[in-house]
Amino acid sequence: MTSFHGQHSIAGSHRGTNPTVAATSPLDGTLLPGRFCLASVTDADDAVRAAAAVFPTFAAATGAARAALLEGIATEILALGDALIERARLETALPEARLVGERGRTVGQLRLFAALAREGSWCDPRIDPAQPQRQPLPRADIRRVKVPLGPVIVFGSSNFPLAFSVAGGDTASALATGNPVVVKAHRGHPGTSELVAGAIERAVASSGLPAGVFSMLHGEGATIGVAMVEHPLAAAVGFTGSRAGGRALVDAAARRLHPIPVFAEMSSLNPVFLLPEALAARGESIASGFVGSMTLGVGQFCTKPGVVIGVEGPDFARFRGALASAVGQAAPGRMLTAEIFSAYRRGSEKLVACPGTALLAKATGTGGDTDALPLVAATSAAAFLADRRLGEEVFGPASLVVSAATRDEMLALARHLDGQLTATVHGTPADLAGAADLLGILATKAGRLIDNGFPTGVVVGHAMQHGGPWPATSDPRFTSVGSAAAERFVRPVCYQDVPDALLPPALQNANPLGLLRLVDGQPSREPIG
Amino acid sequence: MTSFHGQHSIAGSHRGTNPTVAATSPLDGTLLPGRFCLASVTDADDAVRAAAAVFPTFAAATGAARAALLEGIATEILALGDALIERARLETALPEARLVGERGRTVGQLRLFAALAREGSWCDPRIDPAQPQRQPLPRADIRRVKVPLGPVIVFGSSNFPLAFSVAGGDTASALATGNPVVVKAHRGHPGTSELVAGAIERAVASSGLPAGVFSMLHGEGATIGVAMVEHPLAAAVGFTGSRAGGRALVDAAARRLHPIPVFAEMSSLNPVFLLPEALAARGESIASGFVGSMTLGVGQFCTKPGVVIGVEGPDFARFRGALASAVGQAAPGRMLTAEIFSAYRRGSEKLVACPGTALLAKATGTGGDTDALPLVAATSAAAFLADRRLGEEVFGPASLVVSAATRDEMLALARHLDGQLTATVHGTPADLAGAADLLGILATKAGRLIDNGFPTGVVVGHAMQHGGPWPATSDPRFTSVGSAAAERFVRPVCYQDVPDALLPPALQNANPLGLLRLVDGQPSREPIG
Repeated sequence: MTSFHGQHSIAGSHRGTNPTVAATSPLDGTLLPGRFCLASVTDADDAVRAAAAVFPTFAAATGAARAALLEGIATEILALGDALIERARLETALPEARLVGERGRTVGQLRLFAALAREGSWCDPRIDPAQPQRQPLPRADIRRVKVPLGPVIVFGSSNFPLAFSVAGGDTASALATGNPVVVKAHRGHPGTSELVAGAIERAVASSGLPAGVFSMLHGEGATIGVAMVEHPLAAAVGFTGSRAGGRALVDAAARRLHPIPVFAEMSSLNPVFLLPEALAARGESIASGFVGSMTLGVGQFCTKPGVVIGVEGPDFARFRGALASAVGQAAPGRMLTAEIFSAYRRGSEKLVACPGTALLAKATGTGGDTDALPLVAATSAAAFLADRRLGEEVFGPASLVVSAATRDEMLALARHLDGQLTATVHGTPADLAGAADLLGILATKAGRLIDNGFPTGVVVGHAMQHGGPWPATSDPRFTSVGSAAAERFVRPVCYQDVPDALLPPALQNANPLGLLRLVDGQPSREPIG
Repeated sequence: MTSFHGQHSIAGSHRGTNPTVAATSPLDGTLLPGRFCLASVTDADDAVRAAAAVFPTFAAATGAARAALLEGIATEILALGDALIERARLETALPEARLVGERGRTVGQLRLFAALAREGSWCDPRIDPAQPQRQPLPRADIRRVKVPLGPVIVFGSSNFPLAFSVAGGDTASALATGNPVVVKAHRGHPGTSELVAGAIERAVASSGLPAGVFSMLHGEGATIGVAMVEHPLAAAVGFTGSRAGGRALVDAAARRLHPIPVFAEMSSLNPVFLLPEALAARGESIASGFVGSMTLGVGQFCTKPGVVIGVEGPDFARFRGALASAVGQAAPGRMLTAEIFSAYRRGSEKLVACPGTALLAKATGTGGDTDALPLVAATSAAAFLADRRLGEEVFGPASLVVSAATRDEMLALARHLDGQLTATVHGTPADLAGAADLLGILATKAGRLIDNGFPTGVVVGHAMQHGGPWPATSDPRFTSVGSAAAERFVRPVCYQDVPDALLPPALQNANPLGLLRLVDGQPSREPIG
């Protein structure tokens, strides 16, 4: 059986006294093996200082060295084998197949960012060569490249114990671009976190890079989490979690003597709009797909569709009937933690209790008292527009059907929405061709627009945008998924009249890294001069 | 003579009652022609609402239409002729030649952003084509493009009445990418602002674009400035000014129910480091160049060098002597406003009064009582490290010479610095070859590193970075000068399985705009499929 030291990992050393906190399995409420420490503010200070101390070395490391580190982490995670999957299953109640898939995604992400580090064009090199003859004044030689920001504080999420946790996308994108990382492990899965931290420690040790590039602490977000965000040497923050948690960190960063960037992914309804021809032609199959998406992972995805909107009429009534039937038959599911389950019960009760809103259907399966029952409520557009509570995410397998009286009212609903990670439209080609207005509104609200699909399932690639206007995220200009996630943790530096040999390789005349560079505004791989 | 209506420009209409506020000329303290209104919170609300109302139309306009608007603004500004230069001279005391140069830069900036809008690659199109055969699941078609954020609130600066004011870099970069702009005119130059706003109004009217894409208000930053930043329909903020003013806006944006991005350029010492061989070989000419840079525009550039650092010894003593002599002979100068002049006097007195710090030299010219006298103070590295006040910008023609006892102490000074717009190193090739440590530290502190030059004079190009860690700017990941300034006001949206005809042209299969796109991570201009 896997054993746990329960300590923090600070620059390769295990630290911490009095390991007393156990993980409770949501599967049966038992205390799982392993007792874990709670970090003090001093531990947090040590970790951030260790990160800052190695930052110059790590920033100067080659892309190949950083790529090797990320690939090493992927290999070490795979080497943990079934023990990792089993511990994650016990800590989160997520099924084995899901966790195996999530491990694949995590390893894939690490390799994607390894490729990004090795290829190197994330540094966006730009060269405006000198113009000694320019009138009225000569122009200096100006060259610009992106460099890492410094220590990045990463908060592990509850709902992706692998892909958005200790070695998740925030960590991978920060390390790929030369930022040391200090993770605050999520309290829901301390054993999974320790296993992954061990994998990272071994990969760092084999890499020849300094141990301070990675630390991980167990502890309370409200104390050491905020302390890390407030630390003078912290340079940026990555967070995936609740709206309240994200707001607390954004506010803490904004209160600093020197504010720092925070990318917090917080909350999204992920609205789904149904257009008339699609509703008539395949309302039942949309209902079935919708329930599959909203109950996937017990509704614990940030992209769970939380609201579905259509214009009232016989087709929409039939859709509602099919939805009610599918939800009634959906399986109850165990949620990630007892607290999350309580919050789901409160949130879904509050939803149903809003004026003009009623329960449409609830799963009837005979799960235990601690299983979340999928449910759908129904309301009118008028009620939705009048009550902001109906626009708040309920984390878990609940969703809301909203009936608009007219197409105009559907557009009004779209305009009324807060910022979203995604927005989905189901329509036939003719429906969509007539919906440019709706799509235009949704493009101002969401980071990702989906036609005839469902929002769960986020592709990790170069074109993904997982972000959106507040409260979906704290800054709509960035993404937390895909290779562009690295842009969160880099900044440009420009060099004026600096001798070639002293320039970063990406900017040297000979273009030794073979990068595509913007030379006087034109993309080019040619050497300069 | 130019006459002034004194009203706000709100979506092409002139609005405002009770125009009573006159501009005072810093040249002679007289009230200049024209009386100006002060906007109410209602005016601010009207302007932001007008911007939000036309945002969808402006966001959907072609790059060519936006380019024509920007070129039209440039043409209209030039058509204002000498009247603009003369009014700006009376309002700011900046000399005619400087203002003519600044107008050239402003027009050049508008044309640079017109070219950016027309060329179109700022939208960074990325396509990850569908992989229907992918295992274990097919991959959706994912396409990503950048779109404008929405109404941008721009604060005109005092020190660049043209290039960082009503039609300055913030306005040009926001308009180029489809964001309507609401400007808060700087109170120091309301007449110049009205003239430029008129030029923009005429260009908008000729463009066929809706009038709401531009508004300008006269008023108090503390009231309507904050009200605009707090407006629910405002999407982003651009500011160039003081540290206190920038902080107030950053804090106001952070307090919002839905925080929005603020790019504030605030404060910089722009340190200059002198290395031994360069100091020995040409200390006198560096001193002369340094004084030219620190007194340029009466020291009212954000890139004014405010501190010069060397290792104590005969060469540095000789440099100090040359500096003292050059400053003694420097001309007194009239500052932009009486308030700025008062702040300069207070700031330079505070500098000289710091423990271990003394006046090294002060200009002896016989300017009037209201002329700023250039001065240099001298201190030790130990004193600088001990007293944070010595690291605060004094806006105006003052600078501080800091003597380090050793090279290590010079490095400690570099590490001690706050975030900067620029950092400069003077050295021979041998000096520089041995200064990788110093350059490495400075790259973490500043947005632009300069070798053997001076920081004033910011080239407007593709490779410029005018930004840096706090307090130089509020977000080191962006620049306010150069074509990359447009990145502040755009966000990605991705489209999943959206039919080709409904995609933005930048993402359509045929690549009708001929853009360089990232296809599966590889740059390509080829059509898809």
